[in-house]
Amino acid sequence: MGRPSQQEGRPLGEPPAQARGRVVIDSVMPSVECGAFPAKRVVGDQVVVTADLLIDGHDLIDGVVRFRRGRGGPFHEVPLEPLGNDQFSASFPVDAPGVWQFTLEAWLDEWASHGWGLGRKAKAGKDVSLELLGAAGLLEAAAERATREPTAHGVLRDAAKALRSTAPQAERVAIALASPLREVVRRWADTSAATRLEAPREVMVDPVRALRSSWYEVFPRSLGEGGRHGTFKDVERHLAYVAELGCDTLYLPPIHPIGRTHRKGPNNTLTAGPDDVGSPWAIGAAEGGHKAVHPQLGTLEDFRRLVEQARARGIEVAMDIAFQASPDHPYVKAHPEWFVHRADGSIQYAENPPKQYQDVYPFDFASKDWKALWAELASVFLFWAEQGVRVFRVDNPHTKPLTFWRWCLAEVKERYPDAIFLAEAFTRPRLLQGLAKAGFSQSYTYFTWRTTKQELTEYLSGLVAAPLSEYLRPNLWPNTPDILPEHLQFGTRATFVSRLVMAATLSASYGIYGPTYELMQRQAREGAEEYLDNEKFQLRAWNLDDPTSLRYLIARVNEVRRAEPALWRNEGLTFHSIANEQLLAYSKTSADQRSAVLCVVNLDPHHTQGGWLELDLAALGVGADEPFQAHDALSGQRFLWRGRRSYVELDPREVPAHLFTLRRKRRSEKTFEYFL
Amino acid sequence: MGRPSQQEGRPLGEPPAQARGRVVIDSVMPSVECGAFPAKRVVGDQVVVTADLLIDGHDLIDGVVRFRRGRGGPFHEVPLEPLGNDQFSASFPVDAPGVWQFTLEAWLDEWASHGWGLGRKAKAGKDVSLELLGAAGLLEAAAERATREPTAHGVLRDAAKALRSTAPQAERVAIALASPLREVVRRWADTSAATRLEAPREVMVDPVRALRSSWYEVFPRSLGEGGRHGTFKDVERHLAYVAELGCDTLYLPPIHPIGRTHRKGPNNTLTAGPDDVGSPWAIGAAEGGHKAVHPQLGTLEDFRRLVEQARARGIEVAMDIAFQASPDHPYVKAHPEWFVHRADGSIQYAENPPKQYQDVYPFDFASKDWKALWAELASVFLFWAEQGVRVFRVDNPHTKPLTFWRWCLAEVKERYPDAIFLAEAFTRPRLLQGLAKAGFSQSYTYFTWRTTKQELTEYLSGLVAAPLSEYLRPNLWPNTPDILPEHLQFGTRATFVSRLVMAATLSASYGIYGPTYELMQRQAREGAEEYLDNEKFQLRAWNLDDPTSLRYLIARVNEVRRAEPALWRNEGLTFHSIANEQLLAYSKTSADQRSAVLCVVNLDPHHTQGGWLELDLAALGVGADEPFQAHDALSGQRFLWRGRRSYVELDPREVPAHLFTLRRKRRSEKTFEYFL
Repeated sequence: MGRPSQQEGRPLGEPPAQARGRVVIDSVMPSVECGAFPAKRVVGDQVVVTADLLIDGHDLIDGVVRFRRGRGGPFHEVPLEPLGNDQFSASFPVDAPGVWQFTLEAWLDEWASHGWGLGRKAKAGKDVSLELLGAAGLLEAAAERATREPTAHGVLRDAAKALRSTAPQAERVAIALASPLREVVRRWADTSAATRLEAPREVMVDPVRALRSSWYEVFPRSLGEGGRHGTFKDVERHLAYVAELGCDTLYLPPIHPIGRTHRKGPNNTLTAGPDDVGSPWAIGAAEGGHKAVHPQLGTLEDFRRLVEQARARGIEVAMDIAFQASPDHPYVKAHPEWFVHRADGSIQYAENPPKQYQDVYPFDFASKDWKALWAELASVFLFWAEQGVRVFRVDNPHTKPLTFWRWCLAEVKERYPDAIFLAEAFTRPRLLQGLAKAGFSQSYTYFTWRTTKQELTEYLSGLVAAPLSEYLRPNLWPNTPDILPEHLQFGTRATFVSRLVMAATLSASYGIYGPTYELMQRQAREGAEEYLDNEKFQLRAWNLDDPTSLRYLIARVNEVRRAEPALWRNEGLTFHSIANEQLLAYSKTSADQRSAVLCVVNLDPHHTQGGWLELDLAALGVGADEPFQAHDALSGQRFLWRGRRSYVELDPREVPAHLFTLRRKRRSEKTFEYFL
Repeated sequence: MGRPSQQEGRPLGEPPAQARGRVVIDSVMPSVECGAFPAKRVVGDQVVVTADLLIDGHDLIDGVVRFRRGRGGPFHEVPLEPLGNDQFSASFPVDAPGVWQFTLEAWLDEWASHGWGLGRKAKAGKDVSLELLGAAGLLEAAAERATREPTAHGVLRDAAKALRSTAPQAERVAIALASPLREVVRRWADTSAATRLEAPREVMVDPVRALRSSWYEVFPRSLGEGGRHGTFKDVERHLAYVAELGCDTLYLPPIHPIGRTHRKGPNNTLTAGPDDVGSPWAIGAAEGGHKAVHPQLGTLEDFRRLVEQARARGIEVAMDIAFQASPDHPYVKAHPEWFVHRADGSIQYAENPPKQYQDVYPFDFASKDWKALWAELASVFLFWAEQGVRVFRVDNPHTKPLTFWRWCLAEVKERYPDAIFLAEAFTRPRLLQGLAKAGFSQSYTYFTWRTTKQELTEYLSGLVAAPLSEYLRPNLWPNTPDILPEHLQFGTRATFVSRLVMAATLSASYGIYGPTYELMQRQAREGAEEYLDNEKFQLRAWNLDDPTSLRYLIARVNEVRRAEPALWRNEGLTFHSIANEQLLAYSKTSADQRSAVLCVVNLDPHHTQGGWLELDLAALGVGADEPFQAHDALSGQRFLWRGRRSYVELDPREVPAHLFTLRRKRRSEKTFEYFL
């Protein structure tokens, strides 16, 4: 035995007043780090709130979820319903983008608890006269609280009187247990000892596009005809092509004036000739900086027109926001204090020691003048939002402080709640997650390098499950201008097809960098994971009508994405067993299981692979003995299957993947019909 | 595009001042509901704190964990070390029971970040003269901060001077990168923009016994000789037996005066004869209530002596705290407002409708006079703590408010930090967990009813893993006076042995209700899960020397528990594959893997079962090809094994379990030795 503490003789501490409330609220969902960050949802969602509501003994609980759009104004109320096992739930619709708040309140339901005992005793034939009088007392107390609602007051008083009457006990029991009375008492329950969440939880509601989008990245300057520098007008002409592909987000690398000092030449060489176009990410020149347009692309007016024309086709223009400056950026002269200075007074250029990038100056986010810098950078988003842009792809956000993003994105979203931000970060996993928590709507992922069955299964299973799925929305890219992964360099046409099918079906958002992708460009700069003659440093011309192009296949895949609600969300992903390490099988189903897509992908680009599929039929919403049809959207083949086992074989020289939509067979009066 | 919000024109919000700090702290462990409840540890533990510390880019982080005993006084500091993947860790020892606090602070390590780039550039043969001047500047700034430590100030100034000198660059680089200098700069780092946890996290440190204990429950009144009512002196004589069993916690049902009104007779009958002793849980009579001793057991002085005598043998007396009153309890007259009154003015007795327990009045924790009631109940713990009791087994805590327990247990622990509370709650899972969060040191579990291989594997795997393991310490009971489970009623001697071995090895704490257990009492009251002629309602006499008693087997198992550190904790539990549904195989290993215990249990009490064991050798700390010895502590058999596969067979008519201690073979100079 230790010695008693010196506190031993101290008088007892007073229990906190709220301790009288007998309900404890625990494990509230949705929740990111217990409310430190908002959970993410999209417009049209039902936010399903669940919580453990604990009370001692057998007593019953009543409670509500309160919710509101924004952080001010009145809360709306929705009753909590028991799910069993002390879990309760209520849901509310979110019909507009922006911050929403919810909170919970729960209390002992005295009336229901009393009624529960009364009912059991009455059923067992016990005398319940005292219990009926107790019930009358509860009704009288409720009537007291209900004086300002005369109808309710009357109902409660009358019922109390009836319970105190000399009517037969069975009659009075029936009165006490009647549902309509229960509803009136519920409205006037004693909630003075209710337990509440300490602070409301927040949900960030984004436009649907934040969850579900098909991105297509293109360099405007490569769209000129006959080797000419492309313009916004060329991009406008290109919209029909993008629409035909079925992509809904057209992402343009930076469109600002490009610096001349230390401009990079083709293939990232250090000396550029006079005609070399430079990297669009070396932002800023005499013509302006982050709020200006590169003169060779056109005017601000042209750009605004492009945004509108695209939107008319259902395509959003995504703008690249890269917070860094070329040595010629107007900021450098106007705000030298926004940059790090070296010991000789020169400005520190970007480095990844020992590599040096003399054409790019990073900002100093902790500079003495940091507040002015942060405000200016936030104003860049606002400027382009004013021009109509709602989708931003942010370059290298992981080299800027998380605290900056948390502040900046919130400021922009407060003004443009329908703005979307994609974080281009392939950085360390926890930092990538930190950016999503800080407010990015979508995130690039490591899918780009996940190639084996085990890697893909583990990585995607993690991405679509809580806690990640509450705040991180994956956007899968098979390639980017910076990344031509090894498996594309050394694969075959089948590699391009299978990576596309997986990106487009494993996640509700995906993107490709084209036309390199559909034209299956695969030649890398020697020893690098990067394209030879990369558009980042030079103009390229593409033959979009090349007969080997994947454009029609991409269009078909996007068509399935649009038609099948199963592919509109990240939940509902199931991996199915297939006894071949080169075959990956997975399905997505919609919440109501009326849409189900099953993919089988041959990961081997060289050889035919076959194997017995063992479907998790329950995940597909198909009964164990129910026949169902698997319709391959790529080959057009239809299979009629029944039971979990089916043999599948894929020849990569034909199509390396099955993209099945599933239809259950329904017996109608006259015939069999397939339905979604 | 939605319409821009009305906030569009509003000026930007000011970023919060602490946003300048570039480090974000995330996922701090240990943590229960993000700090809403304390994590639990025992005296002597190292508290290993981990957190994700996120910073943008390649910069390096430094930071500390600060900790202190209690909630006031100065914090001690321990540096955080990187674990890789943005995770950091620091640990501190907790050498006294009670509340401990810790917090985290982390900041950009400017010196290390600068040195990292400098080193890489120097290694690549680049000119680093500007970097050396930059380093000198950092040292000068540090020297400025170090003025009140003249030695450090001097070291820093001298080093800065050397870096600015004309000495060869290589020499200056070596100075800049030297470790002793790094340590001085580290001490005087600029932490003005450090990030801190918003509030300290708490850890409840309990005595080791809270984690590791072997309980033995006995009714004192059954220990009298020749049918006489037993006394505390009889219990004293019984201590030698308990010590021989190897149990370290002797739990006595309530020792208070027993009510006479509605006293229960043998086998829970409603009418007691004049000589019937009544249930010890019907607390309170003319002789006193919760702070009095039942006269037939002896005096308070006798009880105190028993507590001391037990402690001298290493045994703690655990007291039963049952917050309920018999109709004769002095509280009923003195504080009628502490009870619920029915409509006719009578006091509400306990019910589980339609069942009624007229001999027990529950307290009304929400009564108008609730604060006085709560204070009185807390004072019951304090009274017995003053008599020397440190272990409390709390009866039915799930029928009292969680908020009461949170307050009451904290008040007691503040005065007696070495107090331990075992929650007797077999209630709904989340409420059971809620009680552990509210402050109970140990919890009864559903082990009592988990019998199949799958049930045991799933249930125990959950119990020993986070999040449960951070706050809930299981105490496994094969039986209690209230529960004679079906498998004991209809099993064989093997059932009693296997349940005991599992309880004692699957968890660091376990208990049995004896002598019924070692004497294998299995006759139930017709149709009930309860003992016939239960000691709860009558005196029993036991022949402890019955030759079939399991006492020596229990002693042997407890001996292994004392000898093997593997069994001193709940972590380190691994289930091993064995292809027979009736055989359960699992191991426990100590953190340093020097102690390993492997159990194989035949769950079938009737038939011999055999199967091929496939060991997870890594979990045992044994190499794939390393020979090792398995020494069965129950049968004395020794097996020399090598590799993962071994055949095991258990005949329940002999011993239904192997309790192996494992020893690896070590080649010494002359011979083979076995070592732990």
